[in-house]
Parts: sequence; C-alpha cells; structure tokens
Amino acid sequence: MKKLYEGKAKIIYTTSDPEILLTQFKDDVTAFNSSKRGIIPGKGEINCQISSALFKWLESKNIATHFIDQPAHREMRVRAVKIVPIEVVVRNIAAGSLCRQTGLIEGKILSFPLVEFYLKNDELGDPLLTRDRLLLLELASQKQLEQLQSIALKINQYLTEFFASCQITLVDFKLEFGLDSQGNLLLADEISPDTCRLWDQQTKNLRDRVLDKDRFRHDLGKVEAAYQQVQQRVLEKLGIR
Amino acid sequence: MKKLYEGKAKIIYTTSDPEILLTQFKDDVTAFNSSKRGIIPGKGEINCQISSALFKWLESKNIATHFIDQPAHREMRVRAVKIVPIEVVVRNIAAGSLCRQTGLIEGKILSFPLVEFYLKNDELGDPLLTRDRLLLLELASQKQLEQLQSIALKINQYLTEFFASCQITLVDFKLEFGLDSQGNLLLADEISPDTCRLWDQQTKNLRDRVLDKDRFRHDLGKVEAAYQQVQQRVLEKLGIR
Repeated sequence: MKKLYEGKAKIIYTTSDPEILLTQFKDDVTAFNSSKRGIIPGKGEINCQISSALFKWLESKNIATHFIDQPAHREMRVRAVKIVPIEVVVRNIAAGSLCRQTGLIEGKILSFPLVEFYLKNDELGDPLLTRDRLLLLELASQKQLEQLQSIALKINQYLTEFFASCQITLVDFKLEFGLDSQGNLLLADEISPDTCRLWDQQTKNLRDRVLDKDRFRHDLGKVEAAYQQVQQRVLEKLGIR
Repeated sequence: MKKLYEGKAKIIYTTSDPEILLTQFKDDVTAFNSSKRGIIPGKGEINCQISSALFKWLESKNIATHFIDQPAHREMRVRAVKIVPIEVVVRNIAAGSLCRQTGLIEGKILSFPLVEFYLKNDELGDPLLTRDRLLLLELASQKQLEQLQSIALKINQYLTEFFASCQITLVDFKLEFGLDSQGNLLLADEISPDTCRLWDQQTKNLRDRVLDKDRFRHDLGKVEAAYQQVQQRVLEKLGIR
C-alpha cells in the first residue's frame, strides 16, 4: 500500500490491484477554501460510515458509484477512477454562496432544483462555471454535461426522499464523479455532512437545525454531535444498526 | 428637463415627451466596481459620438436600438425604456474577469463567441449568472434569454466585422437592453471604448494595442489618445467625417 494522494479530508492509497484504491477518511476539516482549519473528533469514521451506507443504497437504485466495501471504520475500498475536475452541486433551498452571490434569502425554497458546476481548482477558489465556460475549457462535452445533470437530479430525488424519511431536509450537496478504466462514469468522493447541507426537521431553531459542516464554518458549536445525529438516523433508517 | 438618474458615466434627463429621454455623457470614469475613479477629458463627447454612430449603423442592419438622434456633442436623445437588470457580455477573445476566474490565458481566441449574463448590482459586484440562476431570480424568461442571446450574437457579428474594417479587434463588449412602453426589446446604454475591449491591429505591442478602458484600469497611459483613435477610425469608416 502506497499513499497516492492526500487531500483535505481523505488519504488515498494504492492496493495490490491497480483497479482498486483504499480511501482513509480523516478527522481534519477545512472551510472557505482552506482558510479555516480544524479537527472534528470522530468525523473520519462517521463520514466513512454514512458515505458507505449511502453509496451502497444508491447502487441498489442503479446509480453507479466507486464504492466496493468498507474494510474498517474509517476506510473505504473504491474502484480506481480518474476524477472529473468538476464539482457538481445540487441545490433545493438557497444557502451559502448562492445567497452571497445573488442576494437570495437563505432558506428560500427554489422553484426547481439547481444543478451547478464548479471548477475543482483551489487556486482559483473553485469558481462557478456556466455551461458555456465548461465547454470552452473543454472540461466536459455537451453530452457529458447532460449526463452529469441527469444523474445529479436522480441522486437528488433519491437523497431528498431518503433524508426526509430521517426527518432531515436536504438543502444542497456536492458530488464528484470519476471515469473508471472502461470509461464508465461513477459517483465518487463522499456523501456526508461535509458535502451536504442538512437541516433537522425536528427543530425550527435556525441555529439548532444545522446538522452539517456549517456548524464548523460558522462556529455554531456541537459539531461532532450533529454529525453523530446524522450518522445515527441514516444507519437506523437503512437497518444497519 | 428634469434629472431622472445620474449614473457613473451618464446623466439621464426627462424631456417634454414622456417617451423620450436625453442622455448626457460624462467625462467621469470608474473601474473595478467603482473602487477606481477618474476623469478622461473629452470622453463624454467621444463616447456619445461613437455610440450614436454605431447605434445608427446597427439600426440600418435591423437591430432595434433606443437611439433617436444626437442634438449636441455629448447628448443623445433616446427612447424611454425600462432597463433589463442584466449586463449581456459577448466575448471573442479571453480577457479580464474570464481569465481571472477560469485561468484562461489573456488573448486566447475562444472556439465560439461566449454570451454571458451578469446581474446589474453594484452591491453584489455584478456577479456572473448561469442561465438557471437567471431563471430562478425571475430576471428573464427562457424565451427572453434566447432572444437576448440571439440579438447579442448578431450584434457581435456586425460589430466584429465593422471594427475589423477599422483595423481593430473586438475582444469583448457589454450590452444593455431595455423594454419600451410597447414591450419592444431595444438595445440601450452605449457602445464605446468604455464598454468594449478593442485591440489595435496595427501594433503587436500588448500594451500599445489597447484602445479601451483597460488603459485606465491598468494605468497604461494615453487614455484620451486611445479613445480619440477609436472615434477617428469609426467615424471615418462610416463617412461621418
């Protein structure tokens, strides 16, 4: 096993099989393009478990993912993919940069789910890309964009329903995709409170309802407890514990 | 005559006819969302003359504009319109914010003309809007967007050819549109070295070739001379002087 890449929240290792990689989830957390850094104790395990459970569940719905299995609490075996350098964000409710950039009020329910593409580039601050800019930068073909949009909307439908059954509102989330050696487009990265905005439907309090990384971003406290809450509800609903 | 509105580069006055307004072009110039301010002596007259000439010429090509006539050197009579709060930018060559945001190299010829929409909102810094964000903010309908895109591309084709005949490369430009009392979409605002990036084809020197507001933005000097150069070539080509 050789360290292939260390990112902000995960380390990727090679395995004896070139088609398989091992992902180790870290407790480290960063926000605002890494200008804010910290540690959420236990986050690695929690995010690995939530992600593994959701990937497995999405596979059962015919969404192709990179997930193979979870050999240890904070470790996930995944299919080796070439990551598409685009972050696909789906938004159901206005929050975060959408509000800062457009003046929309946080919490406004959008009239349709917004699928947005951002360039994965820390130096440029992960800028929002229009469809035309994506085509111009040759980051994806028109057909690939349509495919990404269509898969993202399907995943949004599944996850929105699923989280609602956990009494959680899926506000928005970020997806990453990769191409395997056969050229198949697979959902990759993770699905966790690091990459989703999740609001607890059991409280109306704007501060208390936040069950995701915004607790860290905006110093709302009780970050670990929020992540645990999501983990508990997700695993329970899927009959894992 | 009553002052209706004073902007960064123009003052709008009412006239005795509610369907007609008078625009007075100022020598004031601002850049970087008004953080940089200055005066370019003679700019008001130059931009009024260039804009008047180009609007008149575009009218002859069946592009509907707000232009009526130019009663004085720095004054233009225009049809009263309700301005659409969107800046339509057409780009043929990478420059400015496109480069800063995507990492594209300045001067790269784009594989197709890029039509982009920006929110006219100083407080938010005139952010780039995707088609979906525009629809979501209800700033335009799908049909209106297609109409704006189609007119902008037509204007780009005409202006690119025209400026080329003046030995000038049309790098990019910003358009504004308005709706008259009958709901007709008219090209409004101005077309000038304030709103276009124009590169002199008669010099290869990257600094010298700039004939537009970038001379002011980046302190390249000889701002007035550059504006005069554009004025002279445009009016000469159109047989006005």
